[in-house]
Amino acid sequence: MKTVNVTILGSTGSIGKQTLSVIDNLNSQKENTEKEYVVRSLAAKGGDSDIKAMLEQVKKYGVKKVAFSEPDSAKQFKEMLPDVEVLASMDGIRELAKERHEKMGGPDENIVVIAVVGAAGLLPTIDAIKTGHRIALANKETLVAGGELVMSKLELNNIMYPPGLRSQGSDLSVFRSEIIPVDSEHSAIWQCLAGEDINRVKRLLLTASGGAFRDLSIERLRHATATDALEHPTWKMGPKITIDCATMMNKGLEIIEAHWLYNMPYEKITPILHKQSLVHSMVEYVDGSLKAQVGDHNMEIPIQYALTYPDRCAHPSELNFGEPFNLTFEPIDFNNPKYKCLKLAVEAGKEGGLMPAVMNAANEMAVYAFLDGKIAYLEIPEIIERTMATYDKTPAKDKKSGSDPLTVDHILTADKWARKKAEMIINDLYINY
Amino acid sequence: MKTVNVTILGSTGSIGKQTLSVIDNLNSQKENTEKEYVVRSLAAKGGDSDIKAMLEQVKKYGVKKVAFSEPDSAKQFKEMLPDVEVLASMDGIRELAKERHEKMGGPDENIVVIAVVGAAGLLPTIDAIKTGHRIALANKETLVAGGELVMSKLELNNIMYPPGLRSQGSDLSVFRSEIIPVDSEHSAIWQCLAGEDINRVKRLLLTASGGAFRDLSIERLRHATATDALEHPTWKMGPKITIDCATMMNKGLEIIEAHWLYNMPYEKITPILHKQSLVHSMVEYVDGSLKAQVGDHNMEIPIQYALTYPDRCAHPSELNFGEPFNLTFEPIDFNNPKYKCLKLAVEAGKEGGLMPAVMNAANEMAVYAFLDGKIAYLEIPEIIERTMATYDKTPAKDKKSGSDPLTVDHILTADKWARKKAEMIINDLYINY
Repeated sequence: MKTVNVTILGSTGSIGKQTLSVIDNLNSQKENTEKEYVVRSLAAKGGDSDIKAMLEQVKKYGVKKVAFSEPDSAKQFKEMLPDVEVLASMDGIRELAKERHEKMGGPDENIVVIAVVGAAGLLPTIDAIKTGHRIALANKETLVAGGELVMSKLELNNIMYPPGLRSQGSDLSVFRSEIIPVDSEHSAIWQCLAGEDINRVKRLLLTASGGAFRDLSIERLRHATATDALEHPTWKMGPKITIDCATMMNKGLEIIEAHWLYNMPYEKITPILHKQSLVHSMVEYVDGSLKAQVGDHNMEIPIQYALTYPDRCAHPSELNFGEPFNLTFEPIDFNNPKYKCLKLAVEAGKEGGLMPAVMNAANEMAVYAFLDGKIAYLEIPEIIERTMATYDKTPAKDKKSGSDPLTVDHILTADKWARKKAEMIINDLYINY
Repeated sequence: MKTVNVTILGSTGSIGKQTLSVIDNLNSQKENTEKEYVVRSLAAKGGDSDIKAMLEQVKKYGVKKVAFSEPDSAKQFKEMLPDVEVLASMDGIRELAKERHEKMGGPDENIVVIAVVGAAGLLPTIDAIKTGHRIALANKETLVAGGELVMSKLELNNIMYPPGLRSQGSDLSVFRSEIIPVDSEHSAIWQCLAGEDINRVKRLLLTASGGAFRDLSIERLRHATATDALEHPTWKMGPKITIDCATMMNKGLEIIEAHWLYNMPYEKITPILHKQSLVHSMVEYVDGSLKAQVGDHNMEIPIQYALTYPDRCAHPSELNFGEPFNLTFEPIDFNNPKYKCLKLAVEAGKEGGLMPAVMNAANEMAVYAFLDGKIAYLEIPEIIERTMATYDKTPAKDKKSGSDPLTVDHILTADKWARKKAEMIINDLYINY
């Protein structure tokens, strides 16, 4: 039996918990698959609920090593379970990402699931690449802010990328590291590219549910509240991403991710409104043929695929064909003021460099300010736009110069700068609210 | 530049003409693809319009060798173009299927497009398999009546089939012959299987437009005429297949074809009503993920794919995402009397042996009788059912015994028997009409 060693960074969040449920499902089939998934280490942010959840996970899976980004939580956890190795802060999380599990006669498979939130995903992803692990990527910022950097690391690592992957004649075992997307849209594209030549792609069609406000007019949106927005029509998610769905920023971030993941020019990535969220995305080929990946709203499907790729294993999820159903598709007008965030994201992506990091950080600040009732819904794009415009006018000496190779420091500095700038704009607006 | 030698059997029909148009399209890209498609030989049935069309095709493509199944047409054609080699009858068509075009240093690719109608497709297909050609199969009877036989020939020919085909670790060049389906549904499944392991398929979902009568009640169908039926809502096709669409027999035949082509048990093939005919079929995997192949109603896409597989080349066909559109799906109830033909086809498929050949022949006779105004619409399934029931009760001495290996003779004898029987039933009904 082959062992697959799994590290989950962000194990107490929604994706982390679903990854563990997928591992239960996979291990229930190990007699057939001859693969056993072993949870080697787990990481979480910290705080009471994280500690409680981590305690249960460590006991259930016999985990010997964990990390908390909050040092106090690490200390507290160590006191509760002295036999477990407990690491603290970003260094601790990075150590988990770097760890290689080998057995006599050669290494088994190692998978690092990056399910932490925000810019914290960037460094562990690069660590995991350098170590040669498979990465199941569920963190948006890694590619939005760090796409250029992360992909250059994969290239340095001698990887044929994107591995979209008609594998005829090529041997996948030469891949020393690979990033498999967990996000439903990118997983859909990954699946639709299997056995195909990525050079024959005409464009990628990313489906968007349209979020909670898809049927509201711009006038009505002026008075939209956080409570209104948190009613996402199809997927159950955290508050930040639910707002990102309503503003379409989520689709904008996904377009940037797809750009890096599939080495696809922005002109070849089209978002399309699909309210039922059953077609998770499509790939259009040069011959006019399209492939669509379809399935129930269940994140366990793309998570499991990222763990088992290129194979598939049984999962109880099933779309019901026993009743009639409709799939609707509508074009998205980038110039519709409702979709201002989408437009800004693509502009940032096209500008490249550190602008996506700035845009992403400003959006995060704006969304949390909206959730806190500090700003109005339509001020979210305004804050992003003003932050981006200020960054554009910031003298070059305060930023990375064009010819420097991009580093993690550059990205984190731009991120920090944008958060501060956005906060100033938010406070400004709040005072005049 | 690599040469791909193409033989088209049935060049004057709809699929044949579209194949030539695809070849024009492919050759307009030969600077990029480094492949030139050369039309080596053409075959048609015969008669004035076939001769006229063939004359134009031979001139345009500089074809040196043709065949007509009607000897008189062959003679007539030879007189018109003495420089062209003209063969006659089934033997002539078989000679084209067997011909191997080689150049110094090894064979180039050879593709035989089987676009003839009816049982005439069976022998040339087997010939092309034995010669090791790629077969682009657009003839239904070959797999409906001859599936068991044809697939056993592929197996004898040392072919890993179905080549559904995560090609990781396998070398496609070892395939000495392969059948690529041209039918839009089977091409869709073929495309959705690329890069996947066919053992991970949960089921195939074949989409059905439902044909001209999909919204009519069984009462209304009693009085349906051929003229009513010939108004197919989405595809423009010949009269026989248009009636088969209305009765759903077409989907039944496709289920039998899919059974053989993908080595899939009947329980794992589900037809589903999809009125827009834009999703050409779907594959559901064990993990709950589905892949759908989508595209405009244009047979040139699957024809081109069969010629270029596993590669894709540019084609002007494009689905319009600039306007909103809907895709609807409904389950099909096999016990609905409207779908009696579908039920009979699947029953014949499950019974196996020569029953599919009998069912197919009886259907052909019944459909032509309906088109001639000899029988009523709802008598089509009645004739098929009565023919099948009689064959079931025919003493074994008149049929192939269970242990005999299936031969072409067995199939052609069963086909002939069923036509005669169906004709008797039709005449019986006609007299009492």
